[in-house]
Amino acid sequence: MPRFFCDDISDGMINITGPDARHIGRSLRMRLGDEITVCSGGVEYLVKILTISDECVSCEQLEKKESENEPDVYVTLFQAMPKSDKLDLIVQKATELGVSRICPVLTSRCVSRPDKKSFDKKLERLQRISLEACKQSGRARLVEITPLLSFNECLEEMKGCDVSLFCYEKGGRSLCRETFEGCKSIGLFIGSEGGFEQEEADRAEASGAVLTGLGKRILRCETAPIAALSVIMNLTGNM
Amino acid sequence: MPRFFCDDISDGMINITGPDARHIGRSLRMRLGDEITVCSGGVEYLVKILTISDECVSCEQLEKKESENEPDVYVTLFQAMPKSDKLDLIVQKATELGVSRICPVLTSRCVSRPDKKSFDKKLERLQRISLEACKQSGRARLVEITPLLSFNECLEEMKGCDVSLFCYEKGGRSLCRETFEGCKSIGLFIGSEGGFEQEEADRAEASGAVLTGLGKRILRCETAPIAALSVIMNLTGNM
Repeated sequence: MPRFFCDDISDGMINITGPDARHIGRSLRMRLGDEITVCSGGVEYLVKILTISDECVSCEQLEKKESENEPDVYVTLFQAMPKSDKLDLIVQKATELGVSRICPVLTSRCVSRPDKKSFDKKLERLQRISLEACKQSGRARLVEITPLLSFNECLEEMKGCDVSLFCYEKGGRSLCRETFEGCKSIGLFIGSEGGFEQEEADRAEASGAVLTGLGKRILRCETAPIAALSVIMNLTGNM
Repeated sequence: MPRFFCDDISDGMINITGPDARHIGRSLRMRLGDEITVCSGGVEYLVKILTISDECVSCEQLEKKESENEPDVYVTLFQAMPKSDKLDLIVQKATELGVSRICPVLTSRCVSRPDKKSFDKKLERLQRISLEACKQSGRARLVEITPLLSFNECLEEMKGCDVSLFCYEKGGRSLCRETFEGCKSIGLFIGSEGGFEQEEADRAEASGAVLTGLGKRILRCETAPIAALSVIMNLTGNM
């Protein structure tokens, strides 16, 4: 059944606007009385279509339930800005795997250093990719993608997580079940192509992050977040 | 240090031929006496260059050691043929993550059904991608990529593995440490875009495979093998 995301939900009535409205009427050729799933903030609503126009599809709520597809840990991926369009792949896969928030970060070794304007354009694109991945993978909560953070801002954000992992190419502790005991929020910091400076690792560790290793093989900067998120979801009972 | 793969190793002498020879002399501009790493069958050789031509670089062995980068489990990925060039991504990432063998398989729901000739062309390309990933990720053993298997051939091959996992989109057991206790060879079967037929799952289970679930979210067919391999490497102590 088609799945949409919407924030305009009140008193059992749900209005879907924007491109999704047109999509429902034109591409999917849905009709009055057809049922769809609308998601908002981790809740799934089964709804029936009452009216359709290119601007707005209004629906009546039939059922409402907490989604079973959302993980019970809140994982923020802090991803050092990679080259070319690798962030597209990372955002798509991280969304499928259940990440809650993605913060691109500028670190010393980032080759790609977009200015605010060009990053804002990229951000829109990333949000579209993540939205599509939410629909396709059956998620019920959108992934927040933030503007670019500096390394210092990233360390500050990581302090707010129950556990924060700094994936360091020179090695660190392996992830295991015990890493996440009683933990509800996880920060995961992954480097760009060149990895991290030793000084960055030292500062992350001093600020409370766990230096983490992802094995002896050198993973590409787009493989590392996918691998780490998969392991985190498995070890926390979410895969 | 540059890393090459070679099978022509005897009595402490190693000859590198083909495109790698040209690459060493021309692109890398290496000189007589320079040292490189040559890998073969899980062993790393530190060698010194004695002669360089476009056809052959001959080297003398200085040191020889079992690589520490290879996992201690032999994982075969049985991957149902996906559409377009998704197998490229799967091969690259599976290689980085430490897979030993990749067998593309034709299942009921494969949309892409290449004939032998067009698959042979694809196979060459996949082998090149895997070789590059071996070099980049620091592996010491090449990944074997086999011709296309039928579903029946795949089940036969899986019987030879200590544990074989059939990742089924309708759910199954989660992977945990106990899944792999005392296990040296693992078979991992992943579906194509449309997943598997119920009948295929039944037959796999009857032939000894464990129906395995990768969580509540629906992973794309190229995400599933990357996620499963990451979890397998973590749970077997190889990540």
